[in-house]
Amino acid sequence: MIIVMKPGTLEEKTRELITRIEDMGLKPVHLRGVEREVLAVIGDERVLEKLHLESHPEIESVTQILSPYKLVSREMHPHDTIVSIGGKVSVGSDRFVVTAGPCAVESMEQMLASAKAVKSGGAHCLRGGAYKPRTSPYSFQGLGKKGLEILAEVKSVVNLPVVTEVVEVQDVELVAEHVDVLQVGARNQQNFRLLQELGHCGKPVILKRGMAATMKDLLLAAEHIVSEGNPDVILCERGIKTFETATRNTLDLSAVPYIKMKSHLPVIVDPSHGTGLRDLVAPMARAAAACGADGVMVEVHINPAEALSDGEQSLDPEMFSSMMRELKPFVEAAGKVL
Amino acid sequence: MIIVMKPGTLEEKTRELITRIEDMGLKPVHLRGVEREVLAVIGDERVLEKLHLESHPEIESVTQILSPYKLVSREMHPHDTIVSIGGKVSVGSDRFVVTAGPCAVESMEQMLASAKAVKSGGAHCLRGGAYKPRTSPYSFQGLGKKGLEILAEVKSVVNLPVVTEVVEVQDVELVAEHVDVLQVGARNQQNFRLLQELGHCGKPVILKRGMAATMKDLLLAAEHIVSEGNPDVILCERGIKTFETATRNTLDLSAVPYIKMKSHLPVIVDPSHGTGLRDLVAPMARAAAACGADGVMVEVHINPAEALSDGEQSLDPEMFSSMMRELKPFVEAAGKVL
Amino acid sequence: MIIVMKPGTLEEKTRELITRIEDMGLKPVHLRGVEREVLAVIGDERVLEKLHLESHPEIESVTQILSPYKLVSREMHPHDTIVSIGGKVSVGSDRFVVTAGPCAVESMEQMLASAKAVKSGGAHCLRGGAYKPRTSPYSFQGLGKKGLEILAEVKSVVNLPVVTEVVEVQDVELVAEHVDVLQVGARNQQNFRLLQELGHCGKPVILKRGMAATMKDLLLAAEHIVSEGNPDVILCERGIKTFETATRNTLDLSAVPYIKMKSHLPVIVDPSHGTGLRDLVAPMARAAAACGADGVMVEVHINPAEALSDGEQSLDPEMFSSMMRELKPFVEAAGKVL
Amino acid sequence: MIIVMKPGTLEEKTRELITRIEDMGLKPVHLRGVEREVLAVIGDERVLEKLHLESHPEIESVTQILSPYKLVSREMHPHDTIVSIGGKVSVGSDRFVVTAGPCAVESMEQMLASAKAVKSGGAHCLRGGAYKPRTSPYSFQGLGKKGLEILAEVKSVVNLPVVTEVVEVQDVELVAEHVDVLQVGARNQQNFRLLQELGHCGKPVILKRGMAATMKDLLLAAEHIVSEGNPDVILCERGIKTFETATRNTLDLSAVPYIKMKSHLPVIVDPSHGTGLRDLVAPMARAAAACGADGVMVEVHINPAEALSDGEQSLDPEMFSSMMRELKPFVEAAGKVL
Repeated sequence: MIIVMKPGTLEEKTRELITRIEDMGLKPVHLRGVEREVLAVIGDERVLEKLHLESHPEIESVTQILSPYKLVSREMHPHDTIVSIGGKVSVGSDRFVVTAGPCAVESMEQMLASAKAVKSGGAHCLRGGAYKPRTSPYSFQGLGKKGLEILAEVKSVVNLPVVTEVVEVQDVELVAEHVDVLQVGARNQQNFRLLQELGHCGKPVILKRGMAATMKDLLLAAEHIVSEGNPDVILCERGIKTFETATRNTLDLSAVPYIKMKSHLPVIVDPSHGTGLRDLVAPMARAAAACGADGVMVEVHINPAEALSDGEQSLDPEMFSSMMRELKPFVEAAGKVL
Repeated sequence: MIIVMKPGTLEEKTRELITRIEDMGLKPVHLRGVEREVLAVIGDERVLEKLHLESHPEIESVTQILSPYKLVSREMHPHDTIVSIGGKVSVGSDRFVVTAGPCAVESMEQMLASAKAVKSGGAHCLRGGAYKPRTSPYSFQGLGKKGLEILAEVKSVVNLPVVTEVVEVQDVELVAEHVDVLQVGARNQQNFRLLQELGHCGKPVILKRGMAATMKDLLLAAEHIVSEGNPDVILCERGIKTFETATRNTLDLSAVPYIKMKSHLPVIVDPSHGTGLRDLVAPMARAAAACGADGVMVEVHINPAEALSDGEQSLDPEMFSSMMRELKPFVEAAGKVL
Repeated sequence: MIIVMKPGTLEEKTRELITRIEDMGLKPVHLRGVEREVLAVIGDERVLEKLHLESHPEIESVTQILSPYKLVSREMHPHDTIVSIGGKVSVGSDRFVVTAGPCAVESMEQMLASAKAVKSGGAHCLRGGAYKPRTSPYSFQGLGKKGLEILAEVKSVVNLPVVTEVVEVQDVELVAEHVDVLQVGARNQQNFRLLQELGHCGKPVILKRGMAATMKDLLLAAEHIVSEGNPDVILCERGIKTFETATRNTLDLSAVPYIKMKSHLPVIVDPSHGTGLRDLVAPMARAAAACGADGVMVEVHINPAEALSDGEQSLDPEMFSSMMRELKPFVEAAGKVL
Repeated sequence: MIIVMKPGTLEEKTRELITRIEDMGLKPVHLRGVEREVLAVIGDERVLEKLHLESHPEIESVTQILSPYKLVSREMHPHDTIVSIGGKVSVGSDRFVVTAGPCAVESMEQMLASAKAVKSGGAHCLRGGAYKPRTSPYSFQGLGKKGLEILAEVKSVVNLPVVTEVVEVQDVELVAEHVDVLQVGARNQQNFRLLQELGHCGKPVILKRGMAATMKDLLLAAEHIVSEGNPDVILCERGIKTFETATRNTLDLSAVPYIKMKSHLPVIVDPSHGTGLRDLVAPMARAAAACGADGVMVEVHINPAEALSDGEQSLDPEMFSSMMRELKPFVEAAGKVL
């Protein structure tokens, strides 16, 4: 850790600080610069968090040398983590995993038809939302428990692992009983109580990047889950909020190779929410495969014009099949199988 | 609502849509342009939400004429809402309400000393966090229930209404029993289950703007609370996430006069989180008063250098008193009293 | 064009406006809504620009139906534009065009070695900056005219078309004499005088997206060049400014398929500036090919550690060759040749 | 400067680097950490710019201790700079300077009427654009030289100093002959050739913050002008580009106290472009005064509904007078005179 003192700081204040750092078992080196005094601290600087040095009125800036996350960093764990879903699909392996399905579970009929359609199109996992966080109180909010039961039944019919979003601590257990993967939506990426609860839910978690979250924020959120005991975290890039309004969000695909450099966790991409436009889903899925993603998650609805949620970004089954066909050579060029 | 059809849409598809809109009891006017067909829908377009028109493959764009929020809009309710806190302080009145206190409740001693300091400095309400959402799992997470008890006891000693953050649906009842105002933090501004729960908590709510939330998003979040039965919502501008890194967030003060134009709810400003730098807190509090805010919320710690959270943006008691002195003429210029 | 009047607008004010619109030869349809009066204008709304309706105190909002750009839109010109560079390379064809070279021209030796290296690696065009817009006045600002002469000479030796940036109206003629393609950098994307000048420079132009420019802004900037008589514009996505600091910019690859949907102009991608990190250049170049780009522009330096500008994002010749090898199957999967 | 080496860097590579730094006359201190090797460099690190250390393949990160700008920093020059305009008005003094006028010079009649109106409202300087950078090629682009002549003539009639924008290097001399202050618009804030030219134009410069510029970028742009010999630079906060679309830009008022802390240059605010909404201009002008600005620049048009540019954010003369009346107590509360 590098601590820069404000200009004009008294010698004794600096010495006092040196003593506090030494008391934590670390070794500060005092560098007397021409315009600034600097303390360089040697040792695991994470123990210094307790000193709250950034609050010191005499300190101008504090720069960390090490990343603030540990368990999810590639330095700690150089090999790729592979997350097994329902004993059937491995995310982070040489399989490019495609999760597809409607934004919201609307009815047994709709969900079953969707599941059959995406399975025949080649999807490896089924998605569908039972709990929908919606911006307007006047929009459809999801079927809740009934939606989970529909998902569980459809799963037993089509034999595909199922992913669904969980939005509340008190729902975690119930959701974990019904599905194979629990998803944390962008709006809950910094709902730390929910993350901690997912740390002992016993199932893999897909953690979507928040709309205002840096990659560091996302990795710290994953650290919350892993540090509570659940190593099976899949990160999901789904677009960030920027000034561009032509697309719903700005899909930050650079996050894929960047996070894979910094972390051992698998990374998937959601081009449906990432762009908000159905015509961009297939090209951005191909780009995701090309830059090293471990899979994609796309919205497919049997009749997008009737969808209760996010219809403008949903593919119909035919568009989904065509996306899968186009995706194949890119997945193979990336050394994976579809 | 203005519906623009894609170029080349078949006449029958447009007619089909007209019928569906008429079935909802609204009157569509068909405008045949040179390059596009347009449908203008007359009547309360909010009933059209159920048609999910933006999902139609033949529709190019949908533009709403009315705002998507209703109960919180000034059109529905032209007079300013005044929120009474603990029967003692009125937010939205001619009082400029100052809420002050530490970021986190650390101990009875710290909290009591803080409360006395901010009271003697002139604060009207006391703040302190019992539940702290923290980005890193290795940071201090708050004292929880014990923190609430400390707040309740300190309140009875200093006789100041108390504000604290609630982060979880299952904590709402307990928090509402101990404090006067429940605060929703920026990270939970789109935690809709929590907002709904606060719709029947029986206490006023301070709703902080999310880091990636537009003002429309904030007003829609308030609509979630009000539409569940709680009219006592105070909006709080606390900075948004931008590319600027010199300040922790970018405090969007234009939000104050803009929201007051669109909504009848009171608006306060948090210059501590909004800037992240203690030297900017006083000038931005003055600017908040000048552009029409109903109050400010600032972090004050008896010893910022020892604060367990957010010390770099905390004022010490002396800086707080000085901020209050400087604030007075600006509050008065704005036609309010401090 | 859809004009929404403010609530409470007097009948006569609305009628006055109708008359003004009719005087422009357009047909306004008056829609009397329950809460708002709306005027829908039929005909080419672009002629209404002169009325400056958005300035009217009685008008709440103005929504355009048509895009504000015309010549560059795909509606006007459905087929892809192919831009020929120096009679040798066609951008927008089935060739995936790779432009490579150092950020700045430093010396004849450096430039010649770079040119040979990128040619042997498989590049189709050479890049190198003679005029460098640098944030700090204390950084290297480029060799200017001498740099252009070096470029022209190197070009005659290696027989590769050359691209260089132009930053000033008065340099346009000189630059156009020395190189094959003139590049407008992100910082000048809204330097409209420069764009107009490039409208009659007689050479193709690469127009880089500004750091704060929406895709609509970029297309309008291209319209400035094309409307002055130069149809040979190549758009370049190079990242936008967002809150993410891990990468230098946020490369918005969705812009590639989006712009290709809206415009007939070719689109290339600059993954070097787009990410600012050399390890991300190759994966993002692959992603660019996968989502439909017509080429990439990458920084290659014979010795990145000694580069006078942007060394941290430059590939060395070996990394460039390896990028080209990896790129090939993705370009072919996209139906193009490298 | 703090240099962090990548993990696993060879001892000899680090030693090589130490030698290079010593050759520059600086003293590197080698800190051997547990997980990283760090070099702390003592002395004026700005001389290290030439080493381009951030390009080194073995270096993980480089952190500067000192700010990258020098001449404009408060450390170099602790007292406030006061810029005299036309020998009549001093910006940075205890005068709160109001510059007002139309966005564009449209005609002698319009300009003269505007000038009289703003003078009688209490403005200290007159503004008006002769050269207008416009996003669309189909919008009004300004009167050019004729506009300058109108400005000069109006100035001689009303006896107010005049501010106008310059967009091109080759116009600088002509513009400087006709007006008292040359303004650099947001789109040209990083047009470094223009900035250098303004370094010897002999007149004060108002430098507006770019839409994607951090405060550091703005200060570095000012350094370009000052380092060329012109100390009379006035910085202008005018809003940055964010995801918020309710306002045209997000006015970053925190920039006022922040820049005044870091620099000795005067800072003014443009609430017209900063918000894009005429109803927000007066409240944000008051806020600017409250947080320490040295003045404001506002758009006033004698008939906003007929304005050729930016009418939706222009005040009419009556609104301007009312803004001035409301502003007075806030300016006085800030210890200045209007």
